[in-house]
Amino acid sequence: MDTSVSRTLFSQRANQLTSSAIREILKITERPEVTSFAGGLPSPAGFPVPELRAAFDKVLATQGATALQYGRTEGYTPLREWVAQDLSRPGLTIDPEEVLIVSGSQQALDMLGKLFIDEGSPVLVEAPSYLGALQSFSQFQPEYRAVPTDALGLVPDALSDDLVRDARFIYVLPNFQNPTGLTLDQARRQALVERCARAGLPIIEDDPYGELRYAGEPQPGLLELGRPVGATVIRLGTFSKVLAPGMRLGYVVAPRHIISKLVQIKQATDLHTASVTQMAVYEAVRSGFLREHLPKVRELYQRQCGYMLDALQEYFPSDAHWTRPEGGMFIWVTLRDSIDTTQLLQAAIQRNVAFVPGAPFYAVNAPTNTLRLSFVTVPEDRIRAGVRTLGELIGPAPARG
Amino acid sequence: MDTSVSRTLFSQRANQLTSSAIREILKITERPEVTSFAGGLPSPAGFPVPELRAAFDKVLATQGATALQYGRTEGYTPLREWVAQDLSRPGLTIDPEEVLIVSGSQQALDMLGKLFIDEGSPVLVEAPSYLGALQSFSQFQPEYRAVPTDALGLVPDALSDDLVRDARFIYVLPNFQNPTGLTLDQARRQALVERCARAGLPIIEDDPYGELRYAGEPQPGLLELGRPVGATVIRLGTFSKVLAPGMRLGYVVAPRHIISKLVQIKQATDLHTASVTQMAVYEAVRSGFLREHLPKVRELYQRQCGYMLDALQEYFPSDAHWTRPEGGMFIWVTLRDSIDTTQLLQAAIQRNVAFVPGAPFYAVNAPTNTLRLSFVTVPEDRIRAGVRTLGELIGPAPARG
Repeated sequence: MDTSVSRTLFSQRANQLTSSAIREILKITERPEVTSFAGGLPSPAGFPVPELRAAFDKVLATQGATALQYGRTEGYTPLREWVAQDLSRPGLTIDPEEVLIVSGSQQALDMLGKLFIDEGSPVLVEAPSYLGALQSFSQFQPEYRAVPTDALGLVPDALSDDLVRDARFIYVLPNFQNPTGLTLDQARRQALVERCARAGLPIIEDDPYGELRYAGEPQPGLLELGRPVGATVIRLGTFSKVLAPGMRLGYVVAPRHIISKLVQIKQATDLHTASVTQMAVYEAVRSGFLREHLPKVRELYQRQCGYMLDALQEYFPSDAHWTRPEGGMFIWVTLRDSIDTTQLLQAAIQRNVAFVPGAPFYAVNAPTNTLRLSFVTVPEDRIRAGVRTLGELIGPAPARG
Repeated sequence: MDTSVSRTLFSQRANQLTSSAIREILKITERPEVTSFAGGLPSPAGFPVPELRAAFDKVLATQGATALQYGRTEGYTPLREWVAQDLSRPGLTIDPEEVLIVSGSQQALDMLGKLFIDEGSPVLVEAPSYLGALQSFSQFQPEYRAVPTDALGLVPDALSDDLVRDARFIYVLPNFQNPTGLTLDQARRQALVERCARAGLPIIEDDPYGELRYAGEPQPGLLELGRPVGATVIRLGTFSKVLAPGMRLGYVVAPRHIISKLVQIKQATDLHTASVTQMAVYEAVRSGFLREHLPKVRELYQRQCGYMLDALQEYFPSDAHWTRPEGGMFIWVTLRDSIDTTQLLQAAIQRNVAFVPGAPFYAVNAPTNTLRLSFVTVPEDRIRAGVRTLGELIGPAPARG
């Protein structure tokens, strides 16, 4: 007789919550007979299980009481030092005090929403952008403004005075973007940081996949380009894709006055990130293990990407377009205007194939003819069969009139 | 030439953030020569290091790919089942679907703030209450209303219609409260849940220390008492005090319509709590290990509590009053009105003794003559010496006029 249920008063933000489209789809696609291109999961074939097992064991054997005790909100000092050193390069020195350890990049997005967004605050996001970021920011009810993009990604020249006026930040994924797989070239990066510096607009540079480049030339990060021109760049990184996501470990690099606020927010949010996982990851990476490990992950992902690009070439209609990522996990497909990919998904699920329709990745004005394909966890034969099924459902390009 | 710094626009909530008093004090008290009664850290002597080391190793040896992969937002299913079973008793059946795993209780407080609080929403808190909860809730800018308390804790009869009107929830720590160490008796618990059921006021029952009872009779939880009378009770628990805090693992038990909203919030907040720590804790507790382990922790804490009560009796002036906790980690001291404990702290730090002044634990109308003492991590001789120093600084009770 829980009579009080109907009287529970939730906050406005809670009343506006809706379940993630990706999340609901992933529930359906947990069945083993489904070939899922929907997931954002990295390949477990890339997880260094023995190395992490040894790292946890060493930490608990030699520093058990520290690993199991409360820790500093800022993060485990040696790990902060490692991150600072790993990101520093000629012309860019990161101080450990500019590093905050977080429980995965997603937590950084939540905390940055808390830091910057009042109800109705304008924020700039790419069109399309990472769905998880939109979900985090939406908790704080911003006014989204879409940054125009073209086939090469974000267009810095389109950042008009009207677009940036009173905006709290611009959120950008410059490498192998989620969901498009696109990488910003150096000229656009330079133009972007200069434009943001002039406008006093902070840049959130989310770079979960940067270390997973398997083609093309590495590009300088926005943090590296932004500092000399006076841009405020907040860089997000994660161990989810270079080691494993199940530890929930990421970091924020930002100017000290921002780190200082984020530390206060993190204290109120979850006190600190687990000590034992921070220490184990530090133990795993301190000896330079990633230098041997990452080439294997890149090679795996490049091979998987190739399987899917080949299959798309073979089975998708001639009027479909898709990106050719230089790294990361995703290919973005644009179909003819008459195809609604949400309807396509319903048909695909009937034939045990799944993907994510593109619409939820747009904060505003979503087109209905795009979709995201993840290629990293599916075996080659199932990639071919799954893409073939999608190609059949889409059907050939209509004959020209 | 970071010229843009001064133009960064933070949210109102970020501009209102202030650093935690406890946090700043803890920084000072990290010096080994300081005897600190300020901490809220459990004793590492109570951490089952070998058992947790074995649990991590088993999980990574046998289920490494799962432990390192993304997991469900709701939490690791066997751990949710364990929590449900552990809390169920005759007359109270908890379903695993009513359990959400979180990254420590602090995260639950943050998420409950998101769920319930709009700017200006009335929320009810004990006077005094847990500082970390006040910090979490304050992020969402509620209007605090203090629930009147007396020497036995919260006074249910004082929950007038005016006090509860439009309130979003009441936040209560019924066992060995932080900071007072007080435990609500059964009659007050019953009166509280009945009053809240009538008012349709959700109760957040925070019980981090419930398993650490070393004196008196166990009391039924608010969840157990509340369900039969139709109260909405949201129960928070944690592994921080029964195992170890450095894993950041806690849980929420609540009706499904609330869990469902919290899952959506958690997805936007940090996706999920680390898989590897959830699986290791499940591995450690599944065989009933806590039944052997908890009596040792209780005995340790009881002994430590006794050292401090003895020292207070011996060294504190006759006009000081303090609580006699039946469990947990804290003793609450009330001094004569003329003593300002913030000033007392300054003097104590000069003599290498630290504690937490009581004022920050009050959401409104803080008295200045209270303080919190934690006794669990300090050796007996240092407890005696530290309390003696504090007694000297406070000075004897003034002669009656």
